[in-house]
Amino acid sequence: MIRKGRLFTPGPTQLLPSAQLAMAGATMHHRTAEFRAIYTRVLADLKTFVGTKNDVVMFTASGTGAMEAAVANLTSPGDKVLVVSAGKFGERWEGLAKAYGCAFETVRAPYGETVTPQQVREKLKPEHRVLFIQATESSTGVRHDIEAIARLLKGTETLLVADAITGLGTTHFDVDGWGMDVIIGGSQKAVMIPPGLAFCSVSDRAWARMETSKNPRYYFDLRKERKNGAKGESSYTPSTALVVALAAALDYIREQGGGDLATGRKLLVDNAETAAAMTRAAAKALGLRLFSASSPGAALTAIASPDGVDSSDIVKAFRNQFGAIVANGQGEMKGQLIRIAHLGYYDYLDTIAAIGALEQVLAGMGRPIDLGAGLRAAQQVYAEVTLPAAVAR
Amino acid sequence: MIRKGRLFTPGPTQLLPSAQLAMAGATMHHRTAEFRAIYTRVLADLKTFVGTKNDVVMFTASGTGAMEAAVANLTSPGDKVLVVSAGKFGERWEGLAKAYGCAFETVRAPYGETVTPQQVREKLKPEHRVLFIQATESSTGVRHDIEAIARLLKGTETLLVADAITGLGTTHFDVDGWGMDVIIGGSQKAVMIPPGLAFCSVSDRAWARMETSKNPRYYFDLRKERKNGAKGESSYTPSTALVVALAAALDYIREQGGGDLATGRKLLVDNAETAAAMTRAAAKALGLRLFSASSPGAALTAIASPDGVDSSDIVKAFRNQFGAIVANGQGEMKGQLIRIAHLGYYDYLDTIAAIGALEQVLAGMGRPIDLGAGLRAAQQVYAEVTLPAAVAR
Repeated sequence: MIRKGRLFTPGPTQLLPSAQLAMAGATMHHRTAEFRAIYTRVLADLKTFVGTKNDVVMFTASGTGAMEAAVANLTSPGDKVLVVSAGKFGERWEGLAKAYGCAFETVRAPYGETVTPQQVREKLKPEHRVLFIQATESSTGVRHDIEAIARLLKGTETLLVADAITGLGTTHFDVDGWGMDVIIGGSQKAVMIPPGLAFCSVSDRAWARMETSKNPRYYFDLRKERKNGAKGESSYTPSTALVVALAAALDYIREQGGGDLATGRKLLVDNAETAAAMTRAAAKALGLRLFSASSPGAALTAIASPDGVDSSDIVKAFRNQFGAIVANGQGEMKGQLIRIAHLGYYDYLDTIAAIGALEQVLAGMGRPIDLGAGLRAAQQVYAEVTLPAAVAR
Repeated sequence: MIRKGRLFTPGPTQLLPSAQLAMAGATMHHRTAEFRAIYTRVLADLKTFVGTKNDVVMFTASGTGAMEAAVANLTSPGDKVLVVSAGKFGERWEGLAKAYGCAFETVRAPYGETVTPQQVREKLKPEHRVLFIQATESSTGVRHDIEAIARLLKGTETLLVADAITGLGTTHFDVDGWGMDVIIGGSQKAVMIPPGLAFCSVSDRAWARMETSKNPRYYFDLRKERKNGAKGESSYTPSTALVVALAAALDYIREQGGGDLATGRKLLVDNAETAAAMTRAAAKALGLRLFSASSPGAALTAIASPDGVDSSDIVKAFRNQFGAIVANGQGEMKGQLIRIAHLGYYDYLDTIAAIGALEQVLAGMGRPIDLGAGLRAAQQVYAEVTLPAAVAR
């Protein structure tokens, strides 16, 4: 059969066609009233999308750029900081803390598990200047209990910096209520456009911290970017095409919310939750083990490779047989799991289709698969979510 | 009359349609064989485009990101460095050197002039670890004599780092022959695609310097990026859509060179030279003063605003009357000059059209303009360049 190219990867994700077309047609200069109006609107919409009253700043960079911005702007060499690490992106916080000369300690969980609030409480000290964490750890699919961990920091001098690059649009956050000082997102995730833009919101006490922090920063200078953002500009030439794409994507999310962006964001999170629940149910019905069983997030579902199967072969078969890209495990996890994304522009039909492909791929590899069992379980989940209780059963 | 949107700004520049379409259609994951092949080809093509045997690395960032990479990777706090500054981008080197704790000295020229090799010779000391310069200073349009300045550094320990963001594709460089250790480019310039990618080539002695340099870097780590580039990958999620656009643009430049990219690059430089010569001749014929008369580059032509005229009004009239965007002066130069770009996807018709619009704009402002005089002068330049000598006269 025909193989259409499809991304089921947790970033880049499937692109929104109206954003693709807006991007292609965008011929504009960034120092014009026309572009300033778009940039101003995007920054305001991102505040709503993040769900905060704090100012949002944006960089032309991948998400790691905004992670570096948080470290470079909020720390000084020798600062004591706490890193929460449960996977490859937690390890990125360690790499950044090391690069910027922080004296970091790490609270760690094995791949596939979360760090518990109890673990954080045991390690947290008053002298920790910042706690760096993932809201969702994209390499394993787990979701940290940000609300409970934020509660531990109340009344302390420790800033909470959360990489929510796959968390935004897949997770409900009360950013200001919980006290998330910095929360970071990226363009190639739930906002449905290509990689190349990173953004974060920054709290008043994080802005205040920057007055005295001493690590070098220039391109990723948050204060400079905030000041220029207030004028509808970026400090350096922004990726104009991607900014225009992002404006179109935020418009789409607003439309989904009946004209209200915050409602659209909530629906997007619910959408991911439903797709994730369908996929988890399908995996279980097919006798597969979830790689992150205890606290799976809705950004993606990580499924452990069956015994004796290298997940690289599953990834290959998805691509060769169906043209669909699913993600392998990263680093040491390569070969052990596949990751199927739900964040952003994935609907019911995509979800059902991915599950069908998973069944065929495993059957094709000679696994004892009851074809249709995963799909049936997913159907049941969808019906339970959407149909009146009496009809669903 | 109808007003089509057009960019005559020195970045972002006019976009190549085939690259815009490639960008819109690019749905791919960056950790796939398909994308690795494109990334590998783009890095190889960029070597040819830059004109070097040195490895090229690329970042998802605007050009300033690659400038920061040069400073962060090649210097340690307290290092003595020399900055050559003749405009806003020279001042950016000063800002970066300051942010990274370098003890910098500056050789400076007034806006609109170049720093001479003699001035550099007088200031250059053996302890200067790096010399930072612009090949072309985009804020004023001047072109530094990189060849002569590079000669001063032969046999010294001073690395030569050149921002050629508007220099590449508008200027002939012998990168390896002259000993340009780092030369920096950006996507929104002569390569005809939107902003969001920066790249640079790095010499062996610059790679060696990084072994001992001590400033922090993570996202902009050149060595990590080189290592991953050799595998067809970027360290962090690259702007996939822009990489695909860049591949298409480099293909276009190769086609222009009859299948040879180096030839295509030379033709692109010649193209900019011709457009610049036409525009300079037109300005003179209209009684206008070139802002950078002594060493104008081919990336753009900076024209001083006539006495009593605020150049902001010229910029506005270009936009309101013709939908065309020309650049104003930057910073303190705002109001004093306009900048008309020639770098990248500008042809004869664009050049003639921009000159025609300039005549109408000035006439509309009540200036004593001999309509057609600028166009006639430009026609003569074009004919001299393209026609056999006997016919042209």
